[in-house]
Amino acid sequence: MNTAIKFILTLVLLVAAASAQDNFVASIRNYRVKNEQRLLSDFTQFLSIPNIASDTPRVYLNADHLVERMKRMGLNPKTFYLGDKGSPPPVVYGEWKTPGAAKTIIFYAHYDGQPVDPKAWTVTDPFKPVIFDRPFEKGGKLIPFPATGEKIDPEWRLYARSASDDKAGVFAILTALEALKANGIQPTVNIKFLFEGEEEAGSPHLGEILTRNKDLLNADAFIVCDGPVHQSGRKQVVFGVRGDTNVDLTVYGANRPLHSGHYGNWSPNPAMRLARLLASMKDDRGNITIKGWNDDVEPLGPTEKKAIAEAPQIDEQLKRELALGQTEGGGKTLLELINIPSLNINGMKSGDVGPLARNVIPTTADAVLDLRLVKGNDFVRQVEKLRKYIELQGFYVIDHDPTDSERLAHPLIAKLIHRKGGYNAQRTPMDLPIGFSVVDAVQRVSSEQVIRMPTLGGSLPLSIITDALNVPTITVPIANYDNNQHAENENIRIQNLWDGIETYAALMTMKK
Amino acid sequence: MNTAIKFILTLVLLVAAASAQDNFVASIRNYRVKNEQRLLSDFTQFLSIPNIASDTPRVYLNADHLVERMKRMGLNPKTFYLGDKGSPPPVVYGEWKTPGAAKTIIFYAHYDGQPVDPKAWTVTDPFKPVIFDRPFEKGGKLIPFPATGEKIDPEWRLYARSASDDKAGVFAILTALEALKANGIQPTVNIKFLFEGEEEAGSPHLGEILTRNKDLLNADAFIVCDGPVHQSGRKQVVFGVRGDTNVDLTVYGANRPLHSGHYGNWSPNPAMRLARLLASMKDDRGNITIKGWNDDVEPLGPTEKKAIAEAPQIDEQLKRELALGQTEGGGKTLLELINIPSLNINGMKSGDVGPLARNVIPTTADAVLDLRLVKGNDFVRQVEKLRKYIELQGFYVIDHDPTDSERLAHPLIAKLIHRKGGYNAQRTPMDLPIGFSVVDAVQRVSSEQVIRMPTLGGSLPLSIITDALNVPTITVPIANYDNNQHAENENIRIQNLWDGIETYAALMTMKK
Repeated sequence: MNTAIKFILTLVLLVAAASAQDNFVASIRNYRVKNEQRLLSDFTQFLSIPNIASDTPRVYLNADHLVERMKRMGLNPKTFYLGDKGSPPPVVYGEWKTPGAAKTIIFYAHYDGQPVDPKAWTVTDPFKPVIFDRPFEKGGKLIPFPATGEKIDPEWRLYARSASDDKAGVFAILTALEALKANGIQPTVNIKFLFEGEEEAGSPHLGEILTRNKDLLNADAFIVCDGPVHQSGRKQVVFGVRGDTNVDLTVYGANRPLHSGHYGNWSPNPAMRLARLLASMKDDRGNITIKGWNDDVEPLGPTEKKAIAEAPQIDEQLKRELALGQTEGGGKTLLELINIPSLNINGMKSGDVGPLARNVIPTTADAVLDLRLVKGNDFVRQVEKLRKYIELQGFYVIDHDPTDSERLAHPLIAKLIHRKGGYNAQRTPMDLPIGFSVVDAVQRVSSEQVIRMPTLGGSLPLSIITDALNVPTITVPIANYDNNQHAENENIRIQNLWDGIETYAALMTMKK
Repeated sequence: MNTAIKFILTLVLLVAAASAQDNFVASIRNYRVKNEQRLLSDFTQFLSIPNIASDTPRVYLNADHLVERMKRMGLNPKTFYLGDKGSPPPVVYGEWKTPGAAKTIIFYAHYDGQPVDPKAWTVTDPFKPVIFDRPFEKGGKLIPFPATGEKIDPEWRLYARSASDDKAGVFAILTALEALKANGIQPTVNIKFLFEGEEEAGSPHLGEILTRNKDLLNADAFIVCDGPVHQSGRKQVVFGVRGDTNVDLTVYGANRPLHSGHYGNWSPNPAMRLARLLASMKDDRGNITIKGWNDDVEPLGPTEKKAIAEAPQIDEQLKRELALGQTEGGGKTLLELINIPSLNINGMKSGDVGPLARNVIPTTADAVLDLRLVKGNDFVRQVEKLRKYIELQGFYVIDHDPTDSERLAHPLIAKLIHRKGGYNAQRTPMDLPIGFSVVDAVQRVSSEQVIRMPTLGGSLPLSIITDALNVPTITVPIANYDNNQHAENENIRIQNLWDGIETYAALMTMKK
């Protein structure tokens, strides 16, 4: 297709979309505008409930909060536990039946959040939401919550853990249905709601919970409401995600801390050992050097390649924005790189830095690695490749802190712990009829052309879902891409939250 | 000298020493035995006063404590400040004049301590001293402080920050004079006391304070009461120390934290950049690869070489004890290695490890390096070698966090901060008469032959002292070598504290 024809087709599509927006969009938007102060206040209240995995009692408070809201909405909420109430956190389920509907859609989001290091949060405590008039990195200022009747600027940012990932998803889904009901608009599909509380812990129990409730969870599509819109600002519908798994790595020096003057450069320093080991895992262009790392990758098909080629090119924009003078991967684009397996150092620590640093040789050095997987990789096999590689570097690899006799017998020791909760990549074919219906619905509430993507760089437990349910998963993200997801100072751009309500309302009223 | 003759000479020396121990040793020991409960209690009280540099008001409480004790002992204490009372902590000075004495000896120790990470202290809070019946690493048990009249086992360990480094030195010096006075034994020399409060911060003001008080500080020897006895357990007299300086190093990724799935292996990870940089600084045998690192080292003279050759060989003992299957330096012994400049990673950190780890690309990675220097090195020049090396690896080296335009112009950026308070190595010739007098005095209270060492692996600000005062410095350590100095769980073996009192009393009554 030549460029001129492509341009004209795009215009036609946009005009069609604009006319389709019609009364529907106006109704949903109007509901939001009338209620935006209450919505912001309700969302803030939801964000104020801490939701990190290690704080199980509070994670439960989030589930209770959702059950209450869903009861009020008439969604007959249930909680699915494994065993007794207590750990692990439940999946909160609810449903809305539409008389005569031919299709059933499951909306999935998660109410738990990534761990927080409150010291690193410079804008606020992670669970005390605050508003900035713009992103604080761009000079945004802290402003008070709006007074009654005060206009809410859609460029404001609300800062809190899970503001984007993924309470925004949970909140927008439920609010979308409220907006439909308030306008007397009947959904066109049966709707099932599924809110998980262990996604950030790797969804260790989701598969079993879904399998136990398989009959209840029959559906035509599993819509995953998580992740960011495209970096261009355009909405995207994503047909896959990368798999993910985490590894804890520890290497050792002497069995007790030593004075760096009396023993330094004689007694091996574990920080240097870890540095040498990690450094060897990539070449100077950032390519992973671990043998066989990419061997089992399933190549992209023509549909996926075409989608990637047609996606907006955002590398240069991102490099400027993130102030990157250089990227990794030997010149490959971001979109190409998220289609190959990765190895990331999430964290690395030995001894102390800053004012706590002492002139010592630390006893251990730790790293946490994050391995992202693509179709064809297996998360257990990928960790085994890593283990073999470490062994090839001369390390004796064990799963416990070494005894003195192990230390004496093996000069180089690495403890490797494969964290619980990994899963494989998943990709739904891009040409299923339900996929086109989803894209059409999102297009209905978009002024720009919706992007279709074969995979998200991030991970969601979709392989667990498809293994358990045999329902195609499609991801419809709403968060701004610069949301500091997983890191300190997570935020959501208010307009993205408002757009999310319209997007999910459109999905609930998709073509029959 | 063949082995048989050497053996006989050693015997003769030991017999001579044993007879010289005579009444003198018995008197000092007797004083200690009679008072050991009070002494332990007084020392514990001293250790309970926090003494880390960042907590200046409490560092001052230590100085006040010493002034009080020295007043009671009639030592006319003074405090030397730079500027007003406040920061920095003072040098506490006192003196004891001996009628007719021909020699003057300065006793130096420091009352400040290394920083502490209370979370890492597993035996107690750093400033809540506790007793274990043996080293806790060897299965020692926490025991209560002795009841009145209960015998104190000299193998007990007292745990607290500065238990060894260096409040043991301060305490043993003052107690030695008390023991002499209580026995009516007159010192043979004039004694000056100098207790510093900034040694662990690199003695940034000591030089100026000494220079200002040069006339008052005229002396024949400057006895430094710090550091550990030899790893063989034998007492040592040490004629030099290594120099020392610290560097803070930071490398950068994107200007904000990023989701490791969406951007990992495209946006560079600063932890990997730091790992690669640090790893390149040593080869796989632990030899430093930085150009010219050893170029300006002054070779050891024949006296020093002989002393090293005659010192007990402790590498194999230490390797077993520390459970080291391998050491660095390509087969060189510990004693050889402490005579060349070192590079140690004190600490290294990027993102978080353990439960706080998140699936992110951190924004920065930090390391603190400790550079030990030998005679001939200059601490400023050594850091410049490091800076040049980092530049050669392609880094733009700056002294501030980079701006976005610096980041865009320079793909690799390292912030290098040369910490305040470095100093050079120092070595007193081993054949000065005062050196022999010191060794003889220490031998008087030793049942084994005293070891003479050209240098300590550790550092003390002796070059600052000799630059300011032109007085030969000789180090007479008393702490057990396995004291966890500078690290968590610092301790002193009670017998070493008791021995220290005898050692310093012997020095105060050295040959005229």
